[in-house]
Amino acid sequence: MPQTASKALVLFSGGQDSTVCLAWALQRFHSVETIGFDYGQRHRVELDCRPRILAQMRRNFGWSGGLGEDHLIDMQVLGEISDTSLTQDMVIEMADNGLPNSFVPGRNLLFLTLAAAVAYRRGIGSLIGGMCETDYSGYPDCRNDTIQMLANAVSLGMDRKFEFLTPLMWLDKAATWALGQELGGAAFTEIVREHSHSCYMGDRDQRFDWGYGCGECPACQLRAKGYAAWQTL
Amino acid sequence: MPQTASKALVLFSGGQDSTVCLAWALQRFHSVETIGFDYGQRHRVELDCRPRILAQMRRNFGWSGGLGEDHLIDMQVLGEISDTSLTQDMVIEMADNGLPNSFVPGRNLLFLTLAAAVAYRRGIGSLIGGMCETDYSGYPDCRNDTIQMLANAVSLGMDRKFEFLTPLMWLDKAATWALGQELGGAAFTEIVREHSHSCYMGDRDQRFDWGYGCGECPACQLRAKGYAAWQTL
Repeated sequence: MPQTASKALVLFSGGQDSTVCLAWALQRFHSVETIGFDYGQRHRVELDCRPRILAQMRRNFGWSGGLGEDHLIDMQVLGEISDTSLTQDMVIEMADNGLPNSFVPGRNLLFLTLAAAVAYRRGIGSLIGGMCETDYSGYPDCRNDTIQMLANAVSLGMDRKFEFLTPLMWLDKAATWALGQELGGAAFTEIVREHSHSCYMGDRDQRFDWGYGCGECPACQLRAKGYAAWQTL
Repeated sequence: MPQTASKALVLFSGGQDSTVCLAWALQRFHSVETIGFDYGQRHRVELDCRPRILAQMRRNFGWSGGLGEDHLIDMQVLGEISDTSLTQDMVIEMADNGLPNSFVPGRNLLFLTLAAAVAYRRGIGSLIGGMCETDYSGYPDCRNDTIQMLANAVSLGMDRKFEFLTPLMWLDKAATWALGQELGGAAFTEIVREHSHSCYMGDRDQRFDWGYGCGECPACQLRAKGYAAWQTL
């Protein structure tokens, strides 16, 4: 894997998963850039968490020397063309098609393709994302088959070989906490708890032992359950 | 092909190729919607051509009864993250990688994925684009392998079967003029000549027998050459 000695771009939302992916990337690549998307998400507060996490990473870890440019991409158009509980003020529930109505069609496809366009220009061949099948919410654009098929399409479409790495694909949330601990110890899991954001409602007023959130939305419940399971590992 | 009796979404830039694709779609589908992208292209004038072509199509043809909603998507971000002669004021020439520097990395990947996101919401399963290998400018995102691989990735990522149809894939520009003639006769090729736009420079002052343009950029030369060849068919 020659790319390990080279450059990576991490899809970094400010959430728990992508924060752990960032630590994972910093241990494996000499140079790591980050990219985030402003798409009119209700939990837009996660974007405010990004620079705070990056600052903490620079301050706390030897391997943060490799932390390079951060790219924030305006994708408001995604909120405009979709009509979901993740971008509109509606109740999060299951839709008739068996998917939660928080599913934004093609969200990860667009994020990965835009990230690849940025990576192309920056001479980066490895893209890293926190997609996960294990604890996923049924989103088909988080599946490994989707991600790897898209890697093929993007590599063909840009005539350059890209690899899409998803270190959390087969981990549950408890294992993601454990991976964070392994990568950066308590100092890092404290960054994840304190500064990463998961809550779909954008709530940062209420504090739990696993971080801030409403405590009730699917993202909070997943995070809380994973944290509790990790405590008993 | 059950979709022939159903709904299609045409990637409609206002250029010659997508105008012919629109006519092709109107003959095959009961309902046809259109989508275009404003991405800071230098030849932004093509976007002004779109409503004029749509109005002409409604006025002239029986099959235009199927012409539905037009979607114009703001993709300025694509111009911002790329640095090419198609979106910046620089000379159009070959770059070191063997591609013209007018190549915007992933442009068609993004357009097709965004179109699929719109189609998902509109209950449309067939996307139609004017991509073409025969007369192409070396853009890898116009290749059939790329487009069909992306159709697989998008179908997986949205958990719904999409077909990406590219009726011009194996035609040269002369054959595209001939297809236009076959689809709508002289009334239609006149719409293509008068109202569709190809010139990368956005020139609509100079008039040639094949339409408006600078007459010198690669897009004008391709259009002129195709028109001349069609005249001798």
